Amino acid sequence: MKQIESIKESGGFLNRYEHDSNTCQCKMTFSVYLPPQASIESVPTLYWLSGLTCTDDNARTKAGMQRYAAEQGIAIVFPDTSPRGQGVADVPERYDLGQGAGFYVNATQTPWQAHYQMYDYITKELPTLVEANLPLIPKLKSISGHSMGGHGALICALKNPNDYRSVSAFAPICNPSVSPWGQTCFKTYLGDDQSLWEAYDATHLIQSGTQLADILIEQGTADEFYTEGQLLPENFAKACEEAGQTLTLRMQAGYDHSYHFIASFIGEHMAYHSNCLNNTDPI
Amino acid sequence: MKQIESIKESGGFLNRYEHDSNTCQCKMTFSVYLPPQASIESVPTLYWLSGLTCTDDNARTKAGMQRYAAEQGIAIVFPDTSPRGQGVADVPERYDLGQGAGFYVNATQTPWQAHYQMYDYITKELPTLVEANLPLIPKLKSISGHSMGGHGALICALKNPNDYRSVSAFAPICNPSVSPWGQTCFKTYLGDDQSLWEAYDATHLIQSGTQLADILIEQGTADEFYTEGQLLPENFAKACEEAGQTLTLRMQAGYDHSYHFIASFIGEHMAYHSNCLNNTDPI
Repeated sequence: MKQIESIKESGGFLNRYEHDSNTCQCKMTFSVYLPPQASIESVPTLYWLSGLTCTDDNARTKAGMQRYAAEQGIAIVFPDTSPRGQGVADVPERYDLGQGAGFYVNATQTPWQAHYQMYDYITKELPTLVEANLPLIPKLKSISGHSMGGHGALICALKNPNDYRSVSAFAPICNPSVSPWGQTCFKTYLGDDQSLWEAYDATHLIQSGTQLADILIEQGTADEFYTEGQLLPENFAKACEEAGQTLTLRMQAGYDHSYHFIASFIGEHMAYHSNCLNNTDPI
Repeated sequence: MKQIESIKESGGFLNRYEHDSNTCQCKMTFSVYLPPQASIESVPTLYWLSGLTCTDDNARTKAGMQRYAAEQGIAIVFPDTSPRGQGVADVPERYDLGQGAGFYVNATQTPWQAHYQMYDYITKELPTLVEANLPLIPKLKSISGHSMGGHGALICALKNPNDYRSVSAFAPICNPSVSPWGQTCFKTYLGDDQSLWEAYDATHLIQSGTQLADILIEQGTADEFYTEGQLLPENFAKACEEAGQTLTLRMQAGYDHSYHFIASFIGEHMAYHSNCLNNTDPI
């Protein structure tokens, strides 16, 4: 991996890297915030997965996470949301399909499967890469994200219940198999057999018996994508209740889908993850 | 004034307005963050002036001020950085002149003087407008800003020493009469007589005998515009020392000119202004 930018922030460094991804078979860009503590010792890591149309830059610029990470001694990894570049399949006229919309799955359908292997990239290649090259405590990580990235955070944690110390999400796509955004991407990337979609659907993963210690979800009631039925937190909450899964779903009156919503509650999510990351021994 | 957007953030509301400005003779857009306290009582106001190329949106999205304003019960007014629109003079190929680069002066030169009256807009028309229409305590205000907006904050406070309770700036253009950005704009907007530029130059205002209770300036040492000689805080510090003006100039090692620098120290600036705004009686 090659460092292509470094910006000092809150006593630490917000760095950007690029590398040739074996998993996605293209050059990938990501950012890492290293808190001041990382200059003297290895630190735990929070992965932040962003939503449709985002790159690694949106959350690091707008969410206001770094100052909390600096206080808590936690690194933040900001991956991109899809493979990119010439030769990578895309639908330029669509914001919700192709580049910028990887949906954190391993595609099986042509031409998508050549590069769109974001699930393996996020859960395997990227942690291995950054843990080998940066002062991060191996295997001590949590995950969070927004919208499509909230879906990504939930499925990464649910499919690897021993790998993440905690998971939270802002306005996640909780049941993509039955929401328009999810159906479009799953059909395109995974094919017509809807039973194969369930492996990447947080609500189905809960229904299939996966359990985590806790899940924290923040959802604004004035979020247009919530009211349109893209997010479906009620489906997820019902599945959790039926399965006996602990869930804290906080419906926040009047908040929308924007980074202003994230910025309003990111401090509480950072404290939640810090409590799990800093008060447990490495696996 | 007409409200054109409202986003809930940190318990308050980030609103955007437009109005027909008598001062700038065009439609102007600005944003106001109203903290939760403003729903039950009037609150003090901090004006934030942004830098070259910015609109009212940059700081409200990237600086991370709103959560502090919510804690402290302070409203923030985010003006635009120039008049805009068809019929407003511009140099589209220049980022540092014309629309987006009003420099917070009252232009005297044709064709600029028709609309570029940003000094009167910021210090007179806009406070009168928002105090008449929003739950703001009349005349209880402070001012801050970044780069060109840091220059703007300094001159607004220095030219109206009784109007602002406190002033701070991030990487301000401290001595525009002798820096390339400032010289270009002052010559264009104010004409060739350099003695007329001094009325909008913070360093000259200090040299001419203006005094404030205190001034807080934050400057990164890795700021490319500082190293290029656009900002010249040393000139301002020397003038303050010679004039007996109290100045806290904090040179922050390794920080650049970006919003990541602002986000790193905005909490301390908000506390500084809150202490002045919340612990004094209205004038």
